[in-house]
Formats: sequence, C-alpha cells, structure tokens
Amino acid sequence: MESPRELVDRALQGQQRAVARLISLVESGSEDLPEVAALLAPHTGRAQVVGLTGSPGVGKSTTTSALVSAFRAAGKRVGVLAVDPSSPFSGGALLGDRVRMGDHALDEGVFIRSMATRGHLGGLAWATPQALRVLDAAGCDVVLVETVGVGQSEIDVVSLADTTVVLLAPGMGDGVQAAKAGILEIADVFVVNKADRDGAAQTVRDLRYMMSLGSRHDDWKPPVCRTVAARGEGIDEVAKAIDEHRAWLESSGEGARRRRRRAEAEIEAIALEKVRVRLDSAGVARFADAVVSGELDPYAAADRLLTSL
Amino acid sequence: MESPRELVDRALQGQQRAVARLISLVESGSEDLPEVAALLAPHTGRAQVVGLTGSPGVGKSTTTSALVSAFRAAGKRVGVLAVDPSSPFSGGALLGDRVRMGDHALDEGVFIRSMATRGHLGGLAWATPQALRVLDAAGCDVVLVETVGVGQSEIDVVSLADTTVVLLAPGMGDGVQAAKAGILEIADVFVVNKADRDGAAQTVRDLRYMMSLGSRHDDWKPPVCRTVAARGEGIDEVAKAIDEHRAWLESSGEGARRRRRRAEAEIEAIALEKVRVRLDSAGVARFADAVVSGELDPYAAADRLLTSL
Repeated sequence: MESPRELVDRALQGQQRAVARLISLVESGSEDLPEVAALLAPHTGRAQVVGLTGSPGVGKSTTTSALVSAFRAAGKRVGVLAVDPSSPFSGGALLGDRVRMGDHALDEGVFIRSMATRGHLGGLAWATPQALRVLDAAGCDVVLVETVGVGQSEIDVVSLADTTVVLLAPGMGDGVQAAKAGILEIADVFVVNKADRDGAAQTVRDLRYMMSLGSRHDDWKPPVCRTVAARGEGIDEVAKAIDEHRAWLESSGEGARRRRRRAEAEIEAIALEKVRVRLDSAGVARFADAVVSGELDPYAAADRLLTSL
Repeated sequence: MESPRELVDRALQGQQRAVARLISLVESGSEDLPEVAALLAPHTGRAQVVGLTGSPGVGKSTTTSALVSAFRAAGKRVGVLAVDPSSPFSGGALLGDRVRMGDHALDEGVFIRSMATRGHLGGLAWATPQALRVLDAAGCDVVLVETVGVGQSEIDVVSLADTTVVLLAPGMGDGVQAAKAGILEIADVFVVNKADRDGAAQTVRDLRYMMSLGSRHDDWKPPVCRTVAARGEGIDEVAKAIDEHRAWLESSGEGARRRRRRAEAEIEAIALEKVRVRLDSAGVARFADAVVSGELDPYAAADRLLTSL
C-alpha cells in the first residue's frame, strides 16, 4: 500500500492507476483526504472544468465521449467525471456509460471516472470538487463533468464549472420547459443534439427566442451548436465554443470570479459536512420522536442539538 | 400587522390569507419563524404528504390539478406546494402553473402555493418542510408537493413525502433512462400520463420489466396508473392508489419510520442552515483566495474556518 505522498507523486506524473486510486480515496471519505488535499493544492488551478447537463435521453454520454475525441485530437489531456446524483440507493453509473466511454479506455491521455453521490444533500458539493482537484493536478487541460438530471444537480454543476454546456434534443419539451428548468440562465454553450431529427430547427428557434427574453448578468453570448453526437457531427464546433468561452473567462475576469466562488462553495461544503457528522453523533435522532409527536418544534430541536455540540 | 399568534390562530381555522402569509413568512426566513414553528407544532402530523415528480413536460402541473379535483370530490382539504428548485436566479414558478391551478383559486378547501428555493444547497430541505407544517396545521388532509426535475430534487421529495408519485410519459426516454434516474427505487405510485399517445403501452411494459429486475426494501408493490390528466382520465385510480398507500403506511409501520426520518432531516437541515449563516459571517471568503492560488487546501481552510467560529 503506497503512502498518500507516493500516490500523489505518481498521479502528478499522470499515471492512470494512481489517479484512479486517489479518486477512490476521495469517494470513500478516507482519513488520508486532508493530507492528499494538501499535497495536491500547489498543483491545481489549471484545468478548465466543463459541466455538461441536460435531461435524461438527450445524449450526454455520447456527446461527452465525442468531445473527448475532439480534445484529444487537439493534443489536450482530458478528464471525465460522470456524476450520477439521481440514484441514492443503487449508487454508481450504469454500464451504458462505461461502454460508450470504452472507446477511450486505452488512451493514456484520458482519465474517466464515474461517481455516485450517495444521496444526502451536499454529496456532490463535497466529493466532486476533490475529484476535480485530482484530475487537475494530474495535468488534465479539460475536465468534463457529466451530470444526469435537471434540477438541483444543475445548480451544483454551475457552482463547479468554469463552462456550463446545456444539452437539448428535439421533442424533449418545448421552450417554456427549458425556461422552467432554469437552463437559460446557467448555460454558457447550448448544444441541440440529435439535430437530424424532426423539430431540431424549432428547438433552436425556441431557444433563441427564449434567450432574447432573458437577461444574463455578463456580456457572454451563449452560442447554440447543432450536433449529431452519435456520428460526431458538429462536435468540433462545440469544442471550439468551449475554447472560446475559456478565452473570454480569462479576458473578462469572470474566470477568476468563478474560481473564487467555487473555492468558497468547496470550503463551506467541507465545513458543513464536518458539522453534519458531528450532528449525527450528537444524536439528531434523539429529538426526532418529540418533533413527530408535536411536543417539540424543529427549530427548538435544532437549537438544542447545536447547544449539545 | 398581526402577531404570529394571531396569524397561526387564523391559519388553524383554515383561513387562506393567514395560511398564505405564514408561508411567505417561512419563505422569507423571518425572525418570527421559531415562534411560528412552536405554535404550529402541536397541530401537525395529520396530513399525508404526496410528492409528485418527473421530467419536465410529463404533465405534472396538469396531473396535480386533476388530483386536487379528485380529492376535493372526496371531501378532503388539499394543499399544493409547487417547488421549483431548478431556477436559482429567477425564482418562483412560471405563470403556466398558476393558470392551470386557477381552476381551484376560488375553492376554500384548497391551498396553493408556489415556492422557489433560491439555489443554495439545502434550500428545499430547509423551507419546504416548514411550509408543509403550515398546510398540515391548517387542516389539509393531503398536501401535494410538485417538483420540477429529475435528480437531486427527487431525493429531496423522497425525504419529505409519505407517498412519492413518479410521472412518466410515452416517448420521454426509455426504461433504461428511467432506471438511470433512480426513479424505480423511489416511486410508491407510477403514473404514465398522456396515455393516449403512441408508445404508452411500451412505456408501461418497460416500467414493469424494470420493476421486475429491481428490489424494493419493503413489501409495497407500486401500482402503475395510466392517465390522460388533461381530460381527467385515470385520475380517480391515482387518487385511490394514494389512499391505499396511506393505509399501507399505517398498517406496516413504514409511515411512522418515514415521519421520523423526515423529522431528522428537518432538524438537521435547520441546524446546518444556522451553521452556514455563521460560516458566511465568519468569513469563508477570506480563505477562498488562498485556496484558488494553491497556498491552502480546502480541508485546511475548512478547519481554520470552523476553529474561528
């Protein structure tokens, strides 16, 4: 069993097995985590973190895999984190993702990892940033974070990502649904995948119309790319849009703001997780019966619990 | 301006305006919240909390509205909380929901409220249970919690609900996608809406097949209802399935377990929110720059932050 320092040294050299073991260590919440984090810290801050999100069925895994090929062709090192926050019980990504990602399994410049996020609130906030740090320190130029779902997980993606790519597909719901899901405000790049299907042009029109109504808080204009990811069509344009967004992040100062916001969220998530563990052992369960019976209200219970810490 | 006690008294009598004002008070995180919670506590614990979830476009709002009619016809008081966790920036539900819910606007036995959940992690966990307590104390027999999205928000629904209803629609993604989203494990009742569309029978077959592969942790067999909610078709069966699930919750003891788990989650969320506020004022921002530059790792920063509390 290697020491954390040996593992980190080998990960810094880009050795895939060491990278995989460090991420496992992160996922398991190992006691070595603080030491690993301290060893990684001086080597982080270079990777562009790209979040990919969209409803189930839009083709996120296929698009991610195609983007890996595009970035590899451009000589970049690529990390992939497939985060599945939607299955608190079964944990882990399904075989399908791994099969599709299998194209890149033998490429030493690609680091792929599926992560489950064990269901409790803050799961993603807590473990994923640490896994990103591992991939960053291992020399990845780009890390693609693929999440399942529309909803809270997207908010998490935004808090993590330098660049957020939102995928849509024709016939998966109209423009109003897109607005409802809040995606217009979080997207830096839009991808209308399965663009060979009926309704693609309408989806693009709906999107442009909704964008014309919305107001971003900055002067980036999110491009709308059309792709057929399964055949690799349009993927180079998406990679180009991601590169351009990176350049804009640096020139506008927005990149520094996002990194700072991410660091704040990360510190806070770790601190809250530490507190949560203490609350559990301080006996949150003790007060639950009194709250169920109506003897105690949850605020009073929370106060008593915090006092008992 | 009424005192919290006057407001609560009027809410206990079922006055809609008082109920609305109490929920606003909850949403705004008012200083009166602990007092309100204490006043409500002895009057809670009777309502059946029913979570409705599913991808955008499956017809959640329409189904919710139809279920309100069905429960009203059975003489029940009904609360509706439309929770939209997916738009951290714009806040609030879109007009569409309110228009559809408008059918019930003049019914004194129906309490409807849209809530936004301001984006930060734990937003739903923190405010929604308090709003549920208001509706419970106001005498609602059933409270329908409608959430947008597939993902983290579903986990939140499960942690809140006595009964979780998962909506699907034909052509919105196949059985593998359903499994990917983890919905098989969280559903107590399945609704295949838009059942007059092509592919409805296939969606039901896919669902039954996936269910045959899965394993629940209890002996409840989730029924699969077919509806055309826009025409009210099949809604009585859904209402009946929800009633039957309630009866099973009581006879099996699972209801007591879920209420207890919900109380634990609620106490913990309130306690963590209190800690989060303290962390912000203790200056999480101070440490962010050092983490961005790699001088400090986020674990060390979290430790220093907690020490400074």
